[in-house]
Amino acid sequence: MNNGVEILDTTLRDGAQGEGISFSVQDKLAVVRTLDELGVSWIEAGNPGSNSKDMEFFRLASDLRLKNAKLCAFGPTRKKGLKPESDPQVKSLLIANTPAVVIFGKSWDLHVREVLRVSPEENIAMIAETAAFLKAWGKMLIYDAEHFFDGWLANPDYALASVKAVIDAGADRIVLCDTNGGSFPDTIAEGIKAVLGLTASARSPALIGIHAHDDSGFASANTVTAVKAGARHVQGTLVGFGERCGNTSLAAVIPSIEIKLGRPCLPPGKLELLCDMTRAVAEIANVSVPDNLPYVGAHAFSHKAGMHADAIIKIRESFEHIDPSLVGNDRRFLMSEAGGRSAVAERVKKIDPSITRDHPVTAVLAQKMKTLEAEGWQFEGADGSFELLARRVLAVEYKPLFHIEAYRVVSEHPTGETLACSHAWVKVLVDSQYEIAAAEGDGPVNALDGALRRALTRFFPELQRVRLSDYKVRVIDGIEATAAKVRVLIESTDGIDVWTTVGVSADIIDASRAALVDSIEYKLIGDMEKESNDG
Amino acid sequence: MNNGVEILDTTLRDGAQGEGISFSVQDKLAVVRTLDELGVSWIEAGNPGSNSKDMEFFRLASDLRLKNAKLCAFGPTRKKGLKPESDPQVKSLLIANTPAVVIFGKSWDLHVREVLRVSPEENIAMIAETAAFLKAWGKMLIYDAEHFFDGWLANPDYALASVKAVIDAGADRIVLCDTNGGSFPDTIAEGIKAVLGLTASARSPALIGIHAHDDSGFASANTVTAVKAGARHVQGTLVGFGERCGNTSLAAVIPSIEIKLGRPCLPPGKLELLCDMTRAVAEIANVSVPDNLPYVGAHAFSHKAGMHADAIIKIRESFEHIDPSLVGNDRRFLMSEAGGRSAVAERVKKIDPSITRDHPVTAVLAQKMKTLEAEGWQFEGADGSFELLARRVLAVEYKPLFHIEAYRVVSEHPTGETLACSHAWVKVLVDSQYEIAAAEGDGPVNALDGALRRALTRFFPELQRVRLSDYKVRVIDGIEATAAKVRVLIESTDGIDVWTTVGVSADIIDASRAALVDSIEYKLIGDMEKESNDG
Repeated sequence: MNNGVEILDTTLRDGAQGEGISFSVQDKLAVVRTLDELGVSWIEAGNPGSNSKDMEFFRLASDLRLKNAKLCAFGPTRKKGLKPESDPQVKSLLIANTPAVVIFGKSWDLHVREVLRVSPEENIAMIAETAAFLKAWGKMLIYDAEHFFDGWLANPDYALASVKAVIDAGADRIVLCDTNGGSFPDTIAEGIKAVLGLTASARSPALIGIHAHDDSGFASANTVTAVKAGARHVQGTLVGFGERCGNTSLAAVIPSIEIKLGRPCLPPGKLELLCDMTRAVAEIANVSVPDNLPYVGAHAFSHKAGMHADAIIKIRESFEHIDPSLVGNDRRFLMSEAGGRSAVAERVKKIDPSITRDHPVTAVLAQKMKTLEAEGWQFEGADGSFELLARRVLAVEYKPLFHIEAYRVVSEHPTGETLACSHAWVKVLVDSQYEIAAAEGDGPVNALDGALRRALTRFFPELQRVRLSDYKVRVIDGIEATAAKVRVLIESTDGIDVWTTVGVSADIIDASRAALVDSIEYKLIGDMEKESNDG
Repeated sequence: MNNGVEILDTTLRDGAQGEGISFSVQDKLAVVRTLDELGVSWIEAGNPGSNSKDMEFFRLASDLRLKNAKLCAFGPTRKKGLKPESDPQVKSLLIANTPAVVIFGKSWDLHVREVLRVSPEENIAMIAETAAFLKAWGKMLIYDAEHFFDGWLANPDYALASVKAVIDAGADRIVLCDTNGGSFPDTIAEGIKAVLGLTASARSPALIGIHAHDDSGFASANTVTAVKAGARHVQGTLVGFGERCGNTSLAAVIPSIEIKLGRPCLPPGKLELLCDMTRAVAEIANVSVPDNLPYVGAHAFSHKAGMHADAIIKIRESFEHIDPSLVGNDRRFLMSEAGGRSAVAERVKKIDPSITRDHPVTAVLAQKMKTLEAEGWQFEGADGSFELLARRVLAVEYKPLFHIEAYRVVSEHPTGETLACSHAWVKVLVDSQYEIAAAEGDGPVNALDGALRRALTRFFPELQRVRLSDYKVRVIDGIEATAAKVRVLIESTDGIDVWTTVGVSADIIDASRAALVDSIEYKLIGDMEKESNDG
């Protein structure tokens, strides 16, 4: 990776500063696995000194076997008057036990004077001593020069002196931050070049990096401009959320750097996962990928004008700046039946290898999916439900194994002494035999799930090993408020496999029922297929 | 406006090409009034030759008395082989009867060859003759050089020759378009300078303009870069929607040009209307202003990290690139575990101005929030619940106004003929009087909401005006699957104010109940305060 550009994702640290973003420890582990699969170089995963949840995460994360990425813990330089070894926040960076640490220090004299309220010399000592301490512990050290560009415009000598101190202390990466997001691209290019001059004269092996924010809408341009000026380390969050208007969206800049500048950022073959991985991280964060996000948004290659569609059919470049398949996205002609069939055929081949793009069943299934997606279904994250849908359309290897005849779910307050606040009964029909079972639970869906499993276990004892491992609810559009549709995604596991199913309804109970039924059917059909293959 | 920059808004033309955007004639008139109030120079309002609705709009628009803006009709150059005067699309530009017209022509030889399929000479004749014809009719002529930058990279001589022809024909504005949105800022600057060279040598009075798209995330940077390079006419859509990833958002670039480059775009005093006018146009288009839209988004000046809030209270510039009031936006300190006592005190001051950061009640409230957030509550977006929490802690202006004695919510399948699948009853106690009411609904929460409101309306008739405007559900930790906690956020409105409340429970019904109760209490307490202030 001679001319390569390193990617550091800070979804779990700066991204978590975004309004409405909050990760559980399990969410954080899931984000790390996704980013590792995509192949970023570094994952800045939290601030162990300020947040006990982050410390718990780092304890669990040490068991992860990552293939591509390395974890970083993030924290401030030592407090004024303390030694690094006696500053609890600095020590927490060692306790986090990550291969790399990121520290941030002040480059802008205004911050030193008005916010930190220390002398210019003490600020530089805080930076240099913390860096030297962490290097002495053998850490790979990434230094975030906070407010570098504002500081450099206000007092260039001081900003460069603060950076020089950390270069001399042996930092491995010097990341220039446009913390307030107000800098113009030409300032970014000049700032990068000024610091490159420092590392050249110091014969430092440190790479220069860029950390941009989108407060002026320049995050993507500033990042790419920095790379053209010599930066070789790019920080951002995959989806782009973060403090205020957000960080640089890595999904939006990686393709510009790889495809247009010809500089690799990810391991070979990973770029085409970009769309899927961005959606996966957004799903964990419970936000949507903005439809207009460059390269990976749902609208990024949507063509509405008939003239444009017509021109594209003549020659792709006429209205597309890149081939959408390079990033795993699809061209869409709005209000047209074209498109999507190749993707559908690719996935149906797993069930019936004879199905091609031009097979009539592919068109039927593509149309069916289009209709369901317009109603709020989403099969992207729900492989289990997609496979069942395909089987129903193909009418192969599929028969309904059970039927819910009736159910009733009750939530009440106050609760009596003998019953939880939610309880349910379910009556099922399996091979002309009825069974009814009841359960109570922490909420209506929990009670329904319990009763349904109990009723079915008499017929399918293997369901005892199945449990729900994740449950997500998304309100699809808020216009009708509590009468809006909800989409429920359920992740299930039998201890070996993991599968996800989806249900949509105006009624959360009914949406959950649909996803639960798919989850159980998927498991039972899979088991039957394995048995027939083994036999 | 010596060094001023003209703004052309194309919300009604290129914006209408955005996925999901569609305007009625009345919508279009409302957008024109809003843009005129904001004070843009030009409004490109439609394509009369391709769309009968647009022609109807232009007929009605001639009655508008605009204070600041002038209308433009948009269309193509003449078709090959026709004279301008016998091309119906060109004639429709005259019939639209606007002070200015915008025509677009091809600058990229690839388009001339592969899409138009005419000779290079015929393309230039099509441009020059159409321009000369419209100038002869006395129109102010704006020329959009489609795909200019792609064309200029591919065949600079041809791209410049196509532009020179229209300068010679007397066009008043030459707008260089990055139609596919794939160009880098340095290309934009060089292209602008090349065309400036042409107008200088031709002693043409034509101003040079820029029209950018956001396919690489560079629309804002490319626009501002063009202005720095000499462009004096900027095209975009106020909110930023448009074909694919959208056009330049004018709301995101006008402040950069006015505040940071010191070049006026709008009449004096108009910049502070930017937030409101952007929301108004979005409202007409039935989309939301993206929360992270630079300058005008709801999150653009939101601060979550306690350290940031603390620094801003010391000195505004520390974490804000501009003063939000310049564009009519507000600073917000988000209430979260990451926030600190300064942020809490700032917000409690609205209830009791004597509360400071160091007041003991601030520490109690910050601690209380931390505890609740560890349990899954989140006050960041839930201003209403935060205010009630503060009132409960302060014990001022707060008494519970009603109590839910009991409720029961039932969801069942199959449904009978006379009852929806979810139904509920609620019994409330208000001032020692009981009331019980029932409702059915699309789901259990909808049914509960209906029954609760019905029971309370007897005591508080003002609740009839309140409705839920958004409803969000988040599963807080997926580990326990359907037994995990859920967080419900409810947005309510009485048609004037909007407020958000939160509830958390293992039971979605119970979490919804908590958020509904807060929503109603917030409204009733607010009304009581207004009355006592008025009295």
